[in-house]
Amino acid sequence: MYKKALIILSGGLDSATCLALAKSNGYDCTAITFDYGQRLIQEIDCAKKLCEIYSTKFELIKLPIGNFKSSSLTDLTKEIPLDYNEDEVPTTYVPARNTVFLSIALAYAEANNIFDIFIGVNVIDYSGYPDCRPEFINAFEKMANLGTKSDSQGRSYKIHTPLIKMNKAEIIKNGVDLGLNYKYTLSCYQPKNNQSCGKCSSCVQRLAGFLEAGVKDPINYV
Amino acid sequence: MYKKALIILSGGLDSATCLALAKSNGYDCTAITFDYGQRLIQEIDCAKKLCEIYSTKFELIKLPIGNFKSSSLTDLTKEIPLDYNEDEVPTTYVPARNTVFLSIALAYAEANNIFDIFIGVNVIDYSGYPDCRPEFINAFEKMANLGTKSDSQGRSYKIHTPLIKMNKAEIIKNGVDLGLNYKYTLSCYQPKNNQSCGKCSSCVQRLAGFLEAGVKDPINYV
Repeated sequence: MYKKALIILSGGLDSATCLALAKSNGYDCTAITFDYGQRLIQEIDCAKKLCEIYSTKFELIKLPIGNFKSSSLTDLTKEIPLDYNEDEVPTTYVPARNTVFLSIALAYAEANNIFDIFIGVNVIDYSGYPDCRPEFINAFEKMANLGTKSDSQGRSYKIHTPLIKMNKAEIIKNGVDLGLNYKYTLSCYQPKNNQSCGKCSSCVQRLAGFLEAGVKDPINYV
Repeated sequence: MYKKALIILSGGLDSATCLALAKSNGYDCTAITFDYGQRLIQEIDCAKKLCEIYSTKFELIKLPIGNFKSSSLTDLTKEIPLDYNEDEVPTTYVPARNTVFLSIALAYAEANNIFDIFIGVNVIDYSGYPDCRPEFINAFEKMANLGTKSDSQGRSYKIHTPLIKMNKAEIIKNGVDLGLNYKYTLSCYQPKNNQSCGKCSSCVQRLAGFLEAGVKDPINYV
């Protein structure tokens, strides 16, 4: 069966694994990457490189949500937090980001007759970010099928979250099993000269994941 | 009570009435207008003018969805239909447009502590466009409250659709009662030199609405 899929690809570890999983399941993939004013613009180069490796169409979409200002991820006057508190939404949270990403992906998918959309949300994310919770994804999928033209073949939109029950180590093990080279992924919130800081919450999670998975992280740290 | 609202304002007749209604209900309004590659770019001038008249903050947001190509509203190689068939989704339908508009509005609202979002969908629209149906709006509202940070004051997002049960004539009567000058609205899918064609489905609906309301349409027609 010929299956087309749209992968929301940031160039981070999770979405890269999502792409590898979709490819291994036989999907003909297109990747959609968002330039929304994030600090870590180097992510986009990673996403592009991953698309070359996986012979995947790369769509870069510019979005204005970074200008709405209210996240340390897009507002350079705010500090990136170095600690991680499970009870609070991190300051790196970007308002309604996944709603916006999924909506633009849905518009692209509807325009191109793609019914399968992949997003790399997972356990670690949804402890902090409201828009990574399974209830949110389910509600989005329901809304998406009400807000689009019905398909003449009766197909409906499906939001795939293959990582949703995995922790970082499990994600990494899955990716390594599929031959994914994590060299072409970036997680750091404040990389400098192609080196990750190793200190921000995203680096800390990544390093702990590689340690637990028993795999060497191939990227460079300060 | 001090209430802030975000109005999705296209510069068309419906959203202009929505703005007038929100203002008359005491909301401190911000208007969000999208430049998404629509043919009728003159709409945006109308939206701006309406914001001047209503002392409303005007936010113009550029979106890439027009490039996804699959609507006669954004693809200049496609013809605007002159007839209107209630059983089909019109070719002017833009894939997932209201999902995208509402999502960007939600991101803006969350970044600015606004909990009331107005959109001018109505009976006429939802006979043709899936993303104007009340079920869609309800599903979006539910998703929006799952995909955003919970508010420390326990407020939740509300998608207001004050026109949802009105036909064009009722919308116009409401606007006229509130003193809205429809001179600063545009409905035509293919206006030329500040004149509306009077023939496209949008002009036909508008003219029929004014006729039924017993009000003279103040804009110029060919």
